[in-house]
Parts: sequence; C-alpha cells; structure tokens
Amino acid sequence: MDETGRRKGLTIVNTGEGKGKTTAALGVILRSWGRGYQICMIQFIKSETTGTGEFSAAKKLGIEWHQTGDGFTWLSREMDETAGRALRGWEMAREKIASGRYDLIVLDEFTYLLHFGWLETHEVIDWLRNNRPAGLHLIITGRFAPQELIDYADLVTEMKMVKHPFAEGIKAQPGIEF
Amino acid sequence: MDETGRRKGLTIVNTGEGKGKTTAALGVILRSWGRGYQICMIQFIKSETTGTGEFSAAKKLGIEWHQTGDGFTWLSREMDETAGRALRGWEMAREKIASGRYDLIVLDEFTYLLHFGWLETHEVIDWLRNNRPAGLHLIITGRFAPQELIDYADLVTEMKMVKHPFAEGIKAQPGIEF
Repeated sequence: MDETGRRKGLTIVNTGEGKGKTTAALGVILRSWGRGYQICMIQFIKSETTGTGEFSAAKKLGIEWHQTGDGFTWLSREMDETAGRALRGWEMAREKIASGRYDLIVLDEFTYLLHFGWLETHEVIDWLRNNRPAGLHLIITGRFAPQELIDYADLVTEMKMVKHPFAEGIKAQPGIEF
Repeated sequence: MDETGRRKGLTIVNTGEGKGKTTAALGVILRSWGRGYQICMIQFIKSETTGTGEFSAAKKLGIEWHQTGDGFTWLSREMDETAGRALRGWEMAREKIASGRYDLIVLDEFTYLLHFGWLETHEVIDWLRNNRPAGLHLIITGRFAPQELIDYADLVTEMKMVKHPFAEGIKAQPGIEF
C-alpha cells in the first residue's frame, strides 16, 4: 500500500478520562488526508454530530464519515436501543475493515461496546487478526479500554484531565471542542 | 468574533510524555477549519516539517503555517542557535496574537522555551493578559508545562504513554505519526 509495500498498519488506542481522545484521532485524519490516504470514520456512541466542525470539514474534504450512535441514556430500555445501534455500527466497521479499500479507519468511542459487554473483546481481536489488511491503520477511542485491547494495540495513550474549563462554568466552544 | 460576540477564547495546554500533544492540536485545527476560522500554526522546536502529512494538508487547505525551529541538539553552541530561533518565533507569535486577525493560534512545542528558561513564564503570561484578543483560542503544546502556565490555562490535558511501538522496533508510520 505504500512505496515499499511494507507498511505496518498500526493499532492506536486513545483512552483515559481527559479530553483529546477523538481530537487526536482527528489530527491523524488531517495528516493522513494530507498524504492522500483513504479514510473512514465511524462514530459509535455520539449522537448527531453533523453540526460539528469536524463533520463539516470531513464533508468539504470528501472524507467518509458515519454516525451510528444515538448518544447515551441511562434508562435500560433506551440502552438496548443504543447497544443495538452500536452493534449495527460494528457490522459496518467489519465490512469497511475487511474491504481493503482504506488506509485508515477510526472507530470513535468503540471501547464502550467492549466495556459494556455488548461485544466480547477477545472475539473482536480474533476477528481483527483474521480479517484486517496488514497495512490498515486503525484508531480506537474511548474510556475504559480493556486490557486485552491494550495488549493487542501498538500505541496506547491515556489522556489525563489536569484542568477543565467546564469546572469553572465555561461553556464548550465551537471549533475547539466540537 | 462569533454570532453572539461573546466567545471566550480558551487557552489549551497539551502536555505530558505521551503521544498526541501536537496531534490533538491538529484535530482542533481540523475542527476550526471546518467552521471557517482563521488559523495560524507556529512550530517552535521541530526541524523541517515540510515533509509531513499535516504540512501538506495545511498547504492544500490554505492554513497559515510557520516553522521557526531547527530541532534540538544538545551541544551548547547549537542550543544557542535553537534558542535564538525560538525567540524569533515568539516575536512572530506576539505579532500574530496581537493582530486580532485569527480565531485560533497554535504554539507547537512552545513549552520548551519556558522550561529551558529562554523566556520567563510570568512575562509571557503578563504579555498575553495585556495583548491577547478576548476571543482568540490559543493552544500550547510540549512537555514540562510550567505550573504558572497551567494556572493560566483553561483546559490542560496530560498525554500519558501507556504503550509505544518504537519500544518494539516498529518505525514511525507516515500519515499517522507525521
């Protein structure tokens, strides 16, 4: 897939309680787009992100972008719906990953599917080992990355919150946080 | 600067030993670009970054991008040259910040100027307090963010390395890490 044909597809996990997990994935998307890579973003949990700066940028740049989520609610009946949507997202992700058409795929907030037990981590990793093209870079974001996923990944960063403006009553700013 | 005229310019610091400090800044650049913001990136320490995916993307997107650095070397004579270039970068940054022409300015690896004592942190912060437009978002990246800078900032994230592929002999991958 690159000039030497020897590209090693990395698995990158951005986890932790702090900001910057999705944002750093967006930074890699910018880099990859700068190199003309084929990119696919799948957002799992987030509800309606079409109003965000990143969605608007992706549209202008022709980056493939999917949203499968409806946000979290903590009522169990609605959680079933959230889980169902997330699992349909994973079906889509498998199709995209196996297709060989991409250089970079981002599974945004995918860790929650593992954390809540909607998917078995070892099954996901087995599937990746068997079906993922060798040169495909994969970024997975979200809190609570399971240890098995960390073991499988090449690069794992924990984003740690040191200071957050919401604590001081400052509202999220467009173009910066969304 | 925004519809309500009440935008609060945030100061964001990405620090720590892990990956993702500059990358998360690039993610905010993508978001801001998606909203049509005026953006300026100043890279302080890094040497020659014109071969990177982000530089190539910025060129295609018409994002203003400056490099003032020549990389680190640890020979003291060359450190003087590095410091001199960095301080000229800060002059440029002050001109850009005070101009009022931007919505977002990124000072990439700027913390090193403070950490190595090439600039006094309290003088930098005093200058920002007096000269920075109220709506301007500022992102500062780099290890060793001084406490005074953290006190001044609104949002501080520490990127912590959990696992890194270089430790396993995997080379940095284009489009992902640069």
